[in-house]
Amino acid sequence: MKVLAILYRGGAAAKEEPRLLGTLENELGLRQYLESQGHEFLVSDDKEGANSFFEKHIADAEVLITTPFHPGYLTAELFKKAKNLKICITAGVGSDHIDLNAAVEHQVQVLEVSGSNVVSVAEHVMMNILLLVRNFVPAHEMIERGDWQVSDIARNAFDLEGKVIGTIGAGRIGYRVLQRLVPFNPKELVYYDYAALPEQAAKAVGARRIEDLKDFVSQCDVITVNAPLHEGTRNLINAELLSHFKKGAWLVNTARGAICDKDAVAAALKSGQLRGYAGDVWDVQPAPRDHVWRKMKNPLGGGNGMVPHYSGTTLDAQARYAAGTKQILDNYLKNKDQEPGNIIIGIGKYATKAYGQR
Amino acid sequence: MKVLAILYRGGAAAKEEPRLLGTLENELGLRQYLESQGHEFLVSDDKEGANSFFEKHIADAEVLITTPFHPGYLTAELFKKAKNLKICITAGVGSDHIDLNAAVEHQVQVLEVSGSNVVSVAEHVMMNILLLVRNFVPAHEMIERGDWQVSDIARNAFDLEGKVIGTIGAGRIGYRVLQRLVPFNPKELVYYDYAALPEQAAKAVGARRIEDLKDFVSQCDVITVNAPLHEGTRNLINAELLSHFKKGAWLVNTARGAICDKDAVAAALKSGQLRGYAGDVWDVQPAPRDHVWRKMKNPLGGGNGMVPHYSGTTLDAQARYAAGTKQILDNYLKNKDQEPGNIIIGIGKYATKAYGQR
Repeated sequence: MKVLAILYRGGAAAKEEPRLLGTLENELGLRQYLESQGHEFLVSDDKEGANSFFEKHIADAEVLITTPFHPGYLTAELFKKAKNLKICITAGVGSDHIDLNAAVEHQVQVLEVSGSNVVSVAEHVMMNILLLVRNFVPAHEMIERGDWQVSDIARNAFDLEGKVIGTIGAGRIGYRVLQRLVPFNPKELVYYDYAALPEQAAKAVGARRIEDLKDFVSQCDVITVNAPLHEGTRNLINAELLSHFKKGAWLVNTARGAICDKDAVAAALKSGQLRGYAGDVWDVQPAPRDHVWRKMKNPLGGGNGMVPHYSGTTLDAQARYAAGTKQILDNYLKNKDQEPGNIIIGIGKYATKAYGQR
Repeated sequence: MKVLAILYRGGAAAKEEPRLLGTLENELGLRQYLESQGHEFLVSDDKEGANSFFEKHIADAEVLITTPFHPGYLTAELFKKAKNLKICITAGVGSDHIDLNAAVEHQVQVLEVSGSNVVSVAEHVMMNILLLVRNFVPAHEMIERGDWQVSDIARNAFDLEGKVIGTIGAGRIGYRVLQRLVPFNPKELVYYDYAALPEQAAKAVGARRIEDLKDFVSQCDVITVNAPLHEGTRNLINAELLSHFKKGAWLVNTARGAICDKDAVAAALKSGQLRGYAGDVWDVQPAPRDHVWRKMKNPLGGGNGMVPHYSGTTLDAQARYAAGTKQILDNYLKNKDQEPGNIIIGIGKYATKAYGQR
């Protein structure tokens, strides 16, 4: 059996830190496990274009392992070439880099390690909300450059207490964000999703559903996006929708970059319609050096909390998704049932509604 | 009656943003209130040395208003000159810049606006914990300078979930931090304080008291300082105590800079004994341009989350402490009882145990 993994190059860091399991160098800790059973295991970070390692070896691989951090994009076109492919495993959460409709058509299963990093991402969301609302970045930069002018920071620093906070998506990550927000005493917690939360779950966090998206965004001081990327969410946050936001709202997106129109977000931040934007996901990854989200600022010189895509790949998360990937592989090899929560596409059908299937 | 206020200069920001009430320019919104009643109201940021505005006018002021952000240091020496002084009001929380023993001796009351910014500071603590544990600052700097190397960030990024988190001080701020930590599923919450929390309060957050400080620090992955500065806490976190910390622990201090030995902290961060240090309080404020805390880093180039002292002076907090200051003044002028929770020093005696009185 041929197993192909697309992982990012960790360089010196990966050699020095063996807990960086999700790198090319450390191979999710799978080499010995696979080779001792006589399987072929190929790993590369070379994923773009017809001559890439990825496109060459997808032709006869039976198993493909990818991550959302350095996604190997498996298009409908490539599915046609992948004659031998049986299963795609996402080491992490979020399989939008796989053409899921094509996976259904070609009878290729798609699985994620669904519990592996939802907490990591929810924590990153909480950090982002706090650092935007409290105006952290310009304050830290002021200290580093040797200045001290409290008024320049305080004029755009607020408390989270008493604000209306909303999540687009109240699933595995969004709900964990709501749970963590409760003791901050928000004015109200609200959510927008295709389905209502179970009554008990909604009550436990005191969250009210708003069914109309424009209505939803117009009520929130802080909005966090916790939804998968699919046809229904791509470009969801565009110039038109941003015009319905409260003036000076904060927006956090750790879901997928392409859910937001990047130029519309940059323009809204520049005009002050958004007071801040933070997250770790980009429409293309790695983000180009001149990506507008790298240096965009609000009119007071703050409001940018961008980082590279790592919220779901802390060392704690890597331990979990490496173990989860191995478990999925092991189930596959031994023909055992998979954890139902990990199955995105079963053989020939969607197993979840999370990717826009109704 | 002569009222003297020492406030920091807000500059252009204060002119543009009237909600910056705690500045020299906006005078806590008190001028009209005081002058309409025939009182004299003097405001300055000039506070250091024998020829300063502060030292000149303290000689015959009846009321002194100060803040922790730009503290007018009222020493025992100055108390001797302050023949007419009856009441010191701290617009905010934390009156360690007043010599409290001298206040007792000279029968000068000291009051704070105690509820005004405890939530603001607790939120800042939460932000600091998250951004240290999750390695935010180097990640954001990487994006700003145009790079993308996830392994260099992820190698020192962790989840808060599953960590042991402890607070030195479980009072108004420390307890609010504990409340906000609960849904992050720490391995354990612990606290060190001169008294035990009421049983119900401890149970509500699941926090265990550890009575020995060395024992306490040796068990914690994350430590946050939420205690007032007094004789018993000055220099509490020194080289000796830091040697008992868990290797690679994170330390957050939004209480008072002088609770930590600044050089010992910088050395511990440099060696990796501390993985991170964040906070907004400094031994001298404004911090000198060459203060070692401005640019100190851990061996991987991160771990510094310092900002100027503003956690308790968000625009939301300023509205509360300006209103609270006015209320204390009004009670004083009308000879009404003060809120008991606001009284630090009553006439000739301590009214709180928070400043080390047992």
